Amino acid sequence: MVYSPRHMKWWGWGDVDATFNSDAHPSFWPYAKSQLGIEREAPPMPPVRLEAVHLPEPTINHHFVAALRSTMYAQQICDARLERVIHAYGKGFRDLFRLRHGSAEGAPDLVVYPENESDVLATLRAAADHDVVVIPFGGGSNIAGCLERTETRRMTVSLDMRRMRRMLAVDSESFTARVEAGIFGPDLEEQLNAHGITLGHFPDSFLHSTLGGWIATRSAGMQSDKYGKIEDMVVALRMVTPEGVLATRSVPKSSNGIDVNHLCIGSEGTLGVITEATMRVHRRPESRVVPAFLFPDFECGIQAMRECARRECMPAMARLNDPDKTALSLAFKPASSQVSQVVNKIFKHYLRAKGFDLPRTCLMLTAFEGPSVDVARRSRDAGSIYRRFGGISMGPSAGKSFESTKYDFPHIRDYLLERGVTADVSETSTVWSNIAPLYHAAIRAIRDGVLESGVAPWTGCHISHSYRCGASLYFTFGFVQNLGREMEQYLKVKRAAQQSFIDHGATLSHHHAVGTEHLPWLAADISPLGVKAVAAIKRGLDPGNNMNPGRLRPSADPFKEWSRIGSLPPVDSKNKAASF
Amino acid sequence: MVYSPRHMKWWGWGDVDATFNSDAHPSFWPYAKSQLGIEREAPPMPPVRLEAVHLPEPTINHHFVAALRSTMYAQQICDARLERVIHAYGKGFRDLFRLRHGSAEGAPDLVVYPENESDVLATLRAAADHDVVVIPFGGGSNIAGCLERTETRRMTVSLDMRRMRRMLAVDSESFTARVEAGIFGPDLEEQLNAHGITLGHFPDSFLHSTLGGWIATRSAGMQSDKYGKIEDMVVALRMVTPEGVLATRSVPKSSNGIDVNHLCIGSEGTLGVITEATMRVHRRPESRVVPAFLFPDFECGIQAMRECARRECMPAMARLNDPDKTALSLAFKPASSQVSQVVNKIFKHYLRAKGFDLPRTCLMLTAFEGPSVDVARRSRDAGSIYRRFGGISMGPSAGKSFESTKYDFPHIRDYLLERGVTADVSETSTVWSNIAPLYHAAIRAIRDGVLESGVAPWTGCHISHSYRCGASLYFTFGFVQNLGREMEQYLKVKRAAQQSFIDHGATLSHHHAVGTEHLPWLAADISPLGVKAVAAIKRGLDPGNNMNPGRLRPSADPFKEWSRIGSLPPVDSKNKAASF
Repeated sequence: MVYSPRHMKWWGWGDVDATFNSDAHPSFWPYAKSQLGIEREAPPMPPVRLEAVHLPEPTINHHFVAALRSTMYAQQICDARLERVIHAYGKGFRDLFRLRHGSAEGAPDLVVYPENESDVLATLRAAADHDVVVIPFGGGSNIAGCLERTETRRMTVSLDMRRMRRMLAVDSESFTARVEAGIFGPDLEEQLNAHGITLGHFPDSFLHSTLGGWIATRSAGMQSDKYGKIEDMVVALRMVTPEGVLATRSVPKSSNGIDVNHLCIGSEGTLGVITEATMRVHRRPESRVVPAFLFPDFECGIQAMRECARRECMPAMARLNDPDKTALSLAFKPASSQVSQVVNKIFKHYLRAKGFDLPRTCLMLTAFEGPSVDVARRSRDAGSIYRRFGGISMGPSAGKSFESTKYDFPHIRDYLLERGVTADVSETSTVWSNIAPLYHAAIRAIRDGVLESGVAPWTGCHISHSYRCGASLYFTFGFVQNLGREMEQYLKVKRAAQQSFIDHGATLSHHHAVGTEHLPWLAADISPLGVKAVAAIKRGLDPGNNMNPGRLRPSADPFKEWSRIGSLPPVDSKNKAASF
Repeated sequence: MVYSPRHMKWWGWGDVDATFNSDAHPSFWPYAKSQLGIEREAPPMPPVRLEAVHLPEPTINHHFVAALRSTMYAQQICDARLERVIHAYGKGFRDLFRLRHGSAEGAPDLVVYPENESDVLATLRAAADHDVVVIPFGGGSNIAGCLERTETRRMTVSLDMRRMRRMLAVDSESFTARVEAGIFGPDLEEQLNAHGITLGHFPDSFLHSTLGGWIATRSAGMQSDKYGKIEDMVVALRMVTPEGVLATRSVPKSSNGIDVNHLCIGSEGTLGVITEATMRVHRRPESRVVPAFLFPDFECGIQAMRECARRECMPAMARLNDPDKTALSLAFKPASSQVSQVVNKIFKHYLRAKGFDLPRTCLMLTAFEGPSVDVARRSRDAGSIYRRFGGISMGPSAGKSFESTKYDFPHIRDYLLERGVTADVSETSTVWSNIAPLYHAAIRAIRDGVLESGVAPWTGCHISHSYRCGASLYFTFGFVQNLGREMEQYLKVKRAAQQSFIDHGATLSHHHAVGTEHLPWLAADISPLGVKAVAAIKRGLDPGNNMNPGRLRPSADPFKEWSRIGSLPPVDSKNKAASF
């Protein structure tokens, strides 16, 4: 039996046995309730049982299945209920809400587990020959709607890449590693670490996402300020398409016309399947420090980050929370001893004495890593820049607390969904001069969107990744659901957030992909001719439109399509009985 | 009258009144003669007079010309002999050899000078409507054959962008500048410097090339180690195509599907015309130092550069010459005083005492720039790495001498062409582990290619740009011409160089573009499916194949086409009489 990393739970984030431990974060739920105006608490609503999930009747193309069976083992081809449900969606609000309520209309008809490039090629060729749809699947962590089927006419296959996880070559002289694309974050880092190297890519989804998924969606890790986004790390790759294999060379830079690596990066499964990549790697850092700072307000923190960019003195990571996200972070802190409560009081007193207005105070988490001497220098230099903008060092404990829980945050959403609260995120990026205006506009748009539905909004934002010319803004929002109108309510808020980005000069997403969730804004972002160019590549490499259709190409009426995706299907009595 | 920067001389490199001053470099020609085995010197052969250049009869599409005249001023549309000859070619060996001998079959039928984006759009629309070919033209410095016409059936227009040179916006808070694409290097830097900023892009062609040309060819500046290649500097751009305008947003990073900036970057005029770009800029460096070093051999120097990459301690520039290029550099030095001759002797003595074998010694020029404190630190840290690999500091004079003449090198070729010597370059890049094997293979291939023609080869190489995972190798070669078979002789050598790159895992060019010169190796470099993908974009944005046809798409028999381009046309008595 081939080893495959485990799937996440089908109804939520993370391993099947992992949940949000509210006892370890005793202030969180009281904080959330007070913010969201929850007075009377209903009992938590568990998801429906697996058996009760409504799965559409599979569309089976027997010629296609026969072709697969002639080249692959039986255990590579699965049509079990659990497999179909697991591969129905990613982990966006729409995805989880539907699954929890027993709807899996996005499910594929079959799941295929290739074990090498030939398997992928055979699957894609068979799909092209028999007019079958293929949706590449990495860890299934995507929250932009990249993974669900968008049509029912053709048989649809989810191509799960997790068995292609070999380290093919490490060139330690050149700091490159050639790796199969189905490898998960922890597995990849463990294998690289054995050579004394790291990729340096740690997205929030690190535990549950794959190299191929990162590349196909232009992912960003927490330390992108130092190591770059995934598109900056790709040296070469191979992508299997219905027309054959696109392969590039391991060279640091080239002038060989249009850079075809960049046709594959961000292609979101619409052209083919990335089967392997040669990545730029780094020595494992000799040293790492994670100081945290408080700023008197958001604007001061932004100015401090910008000054670090201007002075070529950026940390490996800098996450600046706005006041609401700061309050959430403090509420999320583990249970504290009486001693630390006293320390906290003293610290608050100190802040007030320093002129801090506590409700406006912003927490910034940073990380510096690399050769010890550089880390010492840079953290000192950045620290002195932060102080110039009113920053106060909090010492290492806040940073360490973040480090220990950095991959746990997505679990909160499941906890909230169980309690009738919708929570999701929208993120973008813009140039420094536009950060403050965009921030205010987006917060206003989201809050207005929530208020329209008659409930109290919770909104927060953090600056998550910074660059020489700008930064990304990551908005989180939550609100009590309008029972029976949850999806409509969500769509209004999500639409308001995305529209505010586009109206204010920003991009539709900094690192979450377009998928179906952000598709209506694509033409405004990359211009109609940009969309046309992408469609032209698609026609060239996937003339039968077999690869992940319905993405990167907005329809004539994109918002209609957008509102439809993720709506619960018309209620029939059987489904209803099963779900509730 | 609209200001336009001057054109280079039509028969060679640089301004009409600039030449290589051999008196200032008295050792150069004796060195070259001894290396190339020139015993009896023939008198220099000047190029033919302009009036004697054979220009093909223009193909005129009157409907197209009428459409242009209806939207543009008369002085924007030129069919003068000088204009046609200037726009016939770039500045590669093939280009200059043909022009010097009076052949301009690559000349366009008309030259158009747009003054704004509407002019460009009008020209491209008219070209599409009337089946006319458009070749975008920046400074005309390209040496890969990007600029000459490749077909005679359709009317062909050279679209010279030099009048579109406005600085449209500087966002000094975000370190971005939005600039029209026809701006030349010195003009751009002067305007940016007035704001205290720099682009940091200084290719060898800096004086005679444009922003749009840099982007369309994936150019690299001397300080790319610090500032990146041009593709790393583009934040947003606008490209006019026959199908309309592709425009992207000024955002630092995005996850909006396939990055359409990268469809335009490197497109070599085959899709459209880049009319403006928003570029990442930097504070002007507070400090700059240019130390030079000698290494006991090439391998030690390479190892030292790699170690700097590994330790995240790279200079802004590091140019490591192999022994032959080192000898050429020393021969190129300005006339030295008797005192400095004595100093040189003492220094040589010192090197021998240090165990240096002089014929194997390699010169490395470096530059460090940025905030003063960083420059001091980094140059010290890099210097100590160099010493660990046997490097000896030469002090600042060699570096300063390079700085003062850094844009003069291309003039040498004209000087040599006048003396019956062919000289040109081929450059590539590869990963660190492959640098030494590639170097030896390419030198051998070039030397064998020259020897086959019965003359002595001169070859040299320098490592010109370095990256975390590898570096570029820049080969220079020269040899005495086989009279009457100069082009055939050149083609054999050039082919040997390029083939050795591809055979040894490297790329066809690091920063000179594909053009016609490197086209036969494109499919091997980016894979046949990569070529197909590029062709698909072309079909989508330029369905009439009006934009710079014959590039980025190898024909069925690419070497046949390749050998034909640049051959002198069949000699007719009129042409011959005119030319010689």
